[in-house]
Amino acid sequence: MIFHVLTIFPEFFEGPFAHGVVKRGKDAGLLDIRIHNLREWTSDRHRTVDDRPFGGGEGMVLKPEPLFAAVEAIWQRDVPPDLPPAPNRKTVLLSASGRPFDQHLANAYSREAALLLICGRYEGVDERVAEHLADDEISIGNYVLSGGELAAAVVIDAVARLIPGVLGNETSAAFDSFQDTGHGEGLLDCPHWTRPAEFRGWKVPDVLLNGNHEEIRRFRRQLAREKTARLRPDLLAE
Amino acid sequence: MIFHVLTIFPEFFEGPFAHGVVKRGKDAGLLDIRIHNLREWTSDRHRTVDDRPFGGGEGMVLKPEPLFAAVEAIWQRDVPPDLPPAPNRKTVLLSASGRPFDQHLANAYSREAALLLICGRYEGVDERVAEHLADDEISIGNYVLSGGELAAAVVIDAVARLIPGVLGNETSAAFDSFQDTGHGEGLLDCPHWTRPAEFRGWKVPDVLLNGNHEEIRRFRRQLAREKTARLRPDLLAE
Repeated sequence: MIFHVLTIFPEFFEGPFAHGVVKRGKDAGLLDIRIHNLREWTSDRHRTVDDRPFGGGEGMVLKPEPLFAAVEAIWQRDVPPDLPPAPNRKTVLLSASGRPFDQHLANAYSREAALLLICGRYEGVDERVAEHLADDEISIGNYVLSGGELAAAVVIDAVARLIPGVLGNETSAAFDSFQDTGHGEGLLDCPHWTRPAEFRGWKVPDVLLNGNHEEIRRFRRQLAREKTARLRPDLLAE
Repeated sequence: MIFHVLTIFPEFFEGPFAHGVVKRGKDAGLLDIRIHNLREWTSDRHRTVDDRPFGGGEGMVLKPEPLFAAVEAIWQRDVPPDLPPAPNRKTVLLSASGRPFDQHLANAYSREAALLLICGRYEGVDERVAEHLADDEISIGNYVLSGGELAAAVVIDAVARLIPGVLGNETSAAFDSFQDTGHGEGLLDCPHWTRPAEFRGWKVPDVLLNGNHEEIRRFRRQLAREKTARLRPDLLAE
């Protein structure tokens, strides 16, 4: 799977992808990440990517021309012009105004051959990009970031670990929070404990030490339900 | 404001904080980010931070001892022992199992003097950390990441831009999506357009070009409502 990232801060991504799950997937040849500098597709001397909003107001808006030119060039390079464009790829705009990115969408994206992630910046992105260039406009949460770079990194991490073979153990992803398998239908992961069995007087629950696997399974499911009810009642309501 | 980050991947944060809003805040002396390596608080030769879960199962769990030792040492260093601990600081555990981080929480955190963000890793973190060490356990969205580093970076970015003086223009943050001021109560930001007024036959809405500020204000509010209804009906329901 190929992740293309279109950004005005290419150096942002050096740290986040240099370790952990994403690096393991890259080293194993299961995924590739290609960072593209939006300014390469500007045509003026100052390599301008933004301009003031029509109708007035504070802040700058990313212009449509460099974004359309970049996305078209990246897909063109990826898919030779004599072949029909691959259907299993998506152009995704990261913005605070998108629909929510969640584990279901991460699963869907993990089945694409390629994603192109457009990092929004400044006050916003010319709306014609969301309307006519991007397949999806997504948001990683109900908060505002200064740019789409962190959001793109979040999407890549969440999707990469679902690609078969990227996680060391195939079962790990299936038992995470929000997956439909594991402790229940879209519950949070159950709490975990490790040694020492007693730390500052706080003990690990006895049932986890008794070796009765069926009892442990039921106990974990109950804890997952309780924690979900306490911190994420919205998940139980779904 | 001081952001402490406790992690086993200190090098992760070099790119994300080297530019943009967070860097501007640092350069202006309005915030400071201090990255702490959890392995400094291990006591064995291998600097072990994790162990197998009680009750069996895949994956590793972050041990309680190094986390408690690290958090206590960091706050101790920050607040000399002869002074009472500052009340305006929070220890926050990033995990997929936390309550949702949102713009309200970002606003609340921006009024703290210091945050200490604990990056969860592997399958999880010993539950005694959430119960007895962290003030909050939060999740940045309904998806699973391979670690809390990206989540910590998201929290820092979202909070940093709300600290007075960090954004170039004081009004910018107030008009973002999800803020209670701006185009309406918790609506998405309205769409924006910039030049050219016509691009590939797609025109900027006429009303934005006519200079009637009251009409433009009403039009933007209507677009914000429409986009919110289409992509985020859950926000309108609240």
